[in-house]
Amino acid sequence: MNTDWWRNSVAQMHGVSLEQARQRQTQLTKPQGALGRLEQLAVRLAGWQGSARPQMDRVWISVFAGDHGVAVEGVSTVPPAVTGQMLRNFAAGGAAISVMARQLDATLDLRDLGLAVPIEPLPGVHHLDLAPGSANLLHEPAMSEELCRLALRAGRQAVLDAVEQGAQLFIAGEMGIGNTTPACAMASLLLDQPAAALVGPGTGLDAEGLRHKTRVIEAALQLHRPHCQTALDVLSRLGGLEIAAITGAYLAAAQCGIPALVDGYICSTAALCAIRLNPACREWMLFGHRGAEPGHAPVLSALRAEPLLELDMRLGEGTGAAAAVPLLRMACALHNEMATFAEAAVTAEPVTC
Amino acid sequence: MNTDWWRNSVAQMHGVSLEQARQRQTQLTKPQGALGRLEQLAVRLAGWQGSARPQMDRVWISVFAGDHGVAVEGVSTVPPAVTGQMLRNFAAGGAAISVMARQLDATLDLRDLGLAVPIEPLPGVHHLDLAPGSANLLHEPAMSEELCRLALRAGRQAVLDAVEQGAQLFIAGEMGIGNTTPACAMASLLLDQPAAALVGPGTGLDAEGLRHKTRVIEAALQLHRPHCQTALDVLSRLGGLEIAAITGAYLAAAQCGIPALVDGYICSTAALCAIRLNPACREWMLFGHRGAEPGHAPVLSALRAEPLLELDMRLGEGTGAAAAVPLLRMACALHNEMATFAEAAVTAEPVTC
Repeated sequence: MNTDWWRNSVAQMHGVSLEQARQRQTQLTKPQGALGRLEQLAVRLAGWQGSARPQMDRVWISVFAGDHGVAVEGVSTVPPAVTGQMLRNFAAGGAAISVMARQLDATLDLRDLGLAVPIEPLPGVHHLDLAPGSANLLHEPAMSEELCRLALRAGRQAVLDAVEQGAQLFIAGEMGIGNTTPACAMASLLLDQPAAALVGPGTGLDAEGLRHKTRVIEAALQLHRPHCQTALDVLSRLGGLEIAAITGAYLAAAQCGIPALVDGYICSTAALCAIRLNPACREWMLFGHRGAEPGHAPVLSALRAEPLLELDMRLGEGTGAAAAVPLLRMACALHNEMATFAEAAVTAEPVTC
Repeated sequence: MNTDWWRNSVAQMHGVSLEQARQRQTQLTKPQGALGRLEQLAVRLAGWQGSARPQMDRVWISVFAGDHGVAVEGVSTVPPAVTGQMLRNFAAGGAAISVMARQLDATLDLRDLGLAVPIEPLPGVHHLDLAPGSANLLHEPAMSEELCRLALRAGRQAVLDAVEQGAQLFIAGEMGIGNTTPACAMASLLLDQPAAALVGPGTGLDAEGLRHKTRVIEAALQLHRPHCQTALDVLSRLGGLEIAAITGAYLAAAQCGIPALVDGYICSTAALCAIRLNPACREWMLFGHRGAEPGHAPVLSALRAEPLLELDMRLGEGTGAAAAVPLLRMACALHNEMATFAEAAVTAEPVTC
């Protein structure tokens, strides 16, 4: 593995299975295309899995937690201690993503990249503790390049673990108080758009809070822009531990040949960073939910992504992706179990009007 | 029961349970409103069920099949015999809605209102055979008022059966070759909009087919408009057996106090007709899917409806509603199982910036 492992080639879609699935869709007892995106999903899953009859039984959700030095600037209404408190809540089964993982019979994998306020070891949680959160990007790089590379690899490791367990879908979620600020700063540089066009209220800033957050991001951009030549620079200087891990996870998922179902704003920004590091990884991404944060739409647009859902969710944790999993399962069931015109003796040919 | 049973009052939401559920949502470990429409769904379900902890275990899907005399005018690419063939396919488990009902562990209830091409009795299907399909609305009323009333009651009976079985959600689906033509004609009169603004390709008309369909609908409107004083007139003269049954089902669902999850274009037009017959029934409706048929958007707009999904589906059968059921279940699970701030010892109060 070379140092820039993410440049390695990604897995190939299975063209034969894709074509077999596409053919099968034309024979099922419904007008052509009448199941819309559920048909397209089944065909893509067939191509990804190398099976004309794709399955979506084993879903893996990795939630990456990390704190952000910039939180001391008052860019969030919530104190950093909540990152660790929520990690406890994930582990105890009481958080939204815990409930959804149970509901979906999905594996919930928890990875603590590094918290500002230390917590006790939690059962079942990978405490990686790469750093006590990122540094304050208003004054210095959020991460050294070395730390960023460690976080990228931590995301990769989660995918390797998922693949080893036979997962058919990888979902990344995030928990990090303040993380819409680094995401907005990253998106601003990656999209070459002003921060003011992308900034949003996060968990619930008021108008004055939003103006302050915008000023913080603009100042950070002024500091770091001259040093950001590559996407890796953007991620190191303006990102954060969990954002880097998720970026690494999307890159590794494409290399390992497991589709990634992308969550909301933070994860979509990580996905954008991932395709700047290796454009081919886009081929292995699906998008779960279009969120309310103003920066999400331009990021999705740059990714040419059409999320499956739009339910005004803005929680993160992977919940917007998890909410879309039943649609993938429905798509597989329809594709695999519907009768063909021949099997059901239903007239397939249109009549001439 | 008076003759116009649909005018009877509808069930009341349980205000106390609604308020308890709303309160509970503020205490769960997430920013206020961060689960978006999933929060609103849980609160509404609590109000409907009279329980602060709503459940969505028992889902009932009634598919109503009926043929349309206007099909002889070449308004569909598919021959009427397919209505009965598809009913066989529903009963045998090979149709899209059969697969989805299995996937959802929902009851699939099949009601044959009347086919143009008779079929053998099918196991588990209610063969009501009210008429050999509707009459050709291009030349005469699709149904007499008496026949329309029978069809409305057939829909009501399906709801009564669902309630007796303890269903917590009622979904109506339809099967009827040619039924976008009566739906479009009905919507045109109910919305006072020209047919050309609402007409669509149905299962797949080409441009010339679409022009022909528009001319048929316009001629039918010219014939029937002078005789359509009430929504019942519109339904009788321009509707069809399965459309009337679904209209009756939505009215009965509201009266029985079971929420109805409305499917696509045909069902939404029936829902519009239902609220013209008794506006209060709107309170018991949810909407599953925004379809591609051009007439669907204005009908939804008149219903002030925001469907949960938009996946380019245009199949009918109830599939657009069925696809949304997992979201309702997710909403209930999140509402019932998430920890509160107090239970999880997570800091609830926003910090002052």
